[in-house]
Amino acid sequence: MKAASLRIVVVNTVIPVENEQESHVQAQLARSRALRIGLLQAGYNIIAVLPGDLYMTERIAQLQPDMIIIDAESDARDVLEHMVLATRDAPRPIVLFTEDSDQSNMAAAMEAGVSAYVVAGLQTERIKPVLDVAMARFNADQKLRSELSDTKAKLAERKTIERAKGLLMERHQLSENDAYQRLRKQAMEKNLKLADLAQRVLDVADLLGA
Amino acid sequence: MKAASLRIVVVNTVIPVENEQESHVQAQLARSRALRIGLLQAGYNIIAVLPGDLYMTERIAQLQPDMIIIDAESDARDVLEHMVLATRDAPRPIVLFTEDSDQSNMAAAMEAGVSAYVVAGLQTERIKPVLDVAMARFNADQKLRSELSDTKAKLAERKTIERAKGLLMERHQLSENDAYQRLRKQAMEKNLKLADLAQRVLDVADLLGA
Repeated sequence: MKAASLRIVVVNTVIPVENEQESHVQAQLARSRALRIGLLQAGYNIIAVLPGDLYMTERIAQLQPDMIIIDAESDARDVLEHMVLATRDAPRPIVLFTEDSDQSNMAAAMEAGVSAYVVAGLQTERIKPVLDVAMARFNADQKLRSELSDTKAKLAERKTIERAKGLLMERHQLSENDAYQRLRKQAMEKNLKLADLAQRVLDVADLLGA
Repeated sequence: MKAASLRIVVVNTVIPVENEQESHVQAQLARSRALRIGLLQAGYNIIAVLPGDLYMTERIAQLQPDMIIIDAESDARDVLEHMVLATRDAPRPIVLFTEDSDQSNMAAAMEAGVSAYVVAGLQTERIKPVLDVAMARFNADQKLRSELSDTKAKLAERKTIERAKGLLMERHQLSENDAYQRLRKQAMEKNLKLADLAQRVLDVADLLGA
């Protein structure tokens, strides 16, 4: 993907106005500016800069960014928790720039699905390769996660179908194959997935106390 | 994990002696030295520096490193292919330092399970956070991959058990529960996992043409 075509939302820490003159706050603001300058110079399209609050979910759903960059000094863990909720239904690559090198926070960020965790400042010329790697990571990770959820769904469906089949076999003294064919036939007639029809069979049997 | 306790194997490109005076080779050698100096200064234990050849598998099995660092100018893809074979049975975190910013090579590296892909030189002070993140990434990734392989194994076992159960139900006009109990009883008597006993039932039925 060309850098220029990536639509990026930057999420950062809101600094209370009364703290703005403190020296570590000044340093943080300078780093935050340097990051945004680097992104703009690399040709990325920063479509919004937002605070990491509870309204993120709604805003991200609205903005549909290609990537989210969290620029967090040390409160990354909190921002990340909100972000996980905000992207649960539509996962997006998340890149975290932070000063937090605590290993348990790193582990938590990985579990939460962060595509890149970048500690300490980054030279401008390295921004593009870091974001490219993050995108590749995100895609590989999504593939693995969707394979996992597909396999889990298949396992659950199979359990349901086998239970419904067993019920028919016992009830009507059917062979396994005949029970299967009967379920399949009704699923086709009702235009349902086999697993959904099987779930109905179990629900109704339960309801009838059968 | 403390930096000092990490045992690292560095895999790098062998440069033919006749090319050593070329300027890009000189630059590569300088980067490679800077990386090793950085690792040593950060307190890591470099237990070996190896070429990325076919003997890697054996050497890595022998050395049992905690992490593998591939220092590859542009031939990362070849080295990586050997490395995937070398760590297939005992996955280890792999960190790739390269000058290769080709996006299809990045994607291939992610699929191959690389824990960090670092393009272009790295300042010495950033080495430790990068390796810490790689370790956290590796652990999260292994967790996901092992969940996937467990789920796949469960699905395969369930298919086997259900087929064996169906066979008994048909053959002996048993209820589903009775067929299951009969399989379970024999598995316990033979001290086998239920899925393994079920596989035996299917194999023998097949052999007897039953």
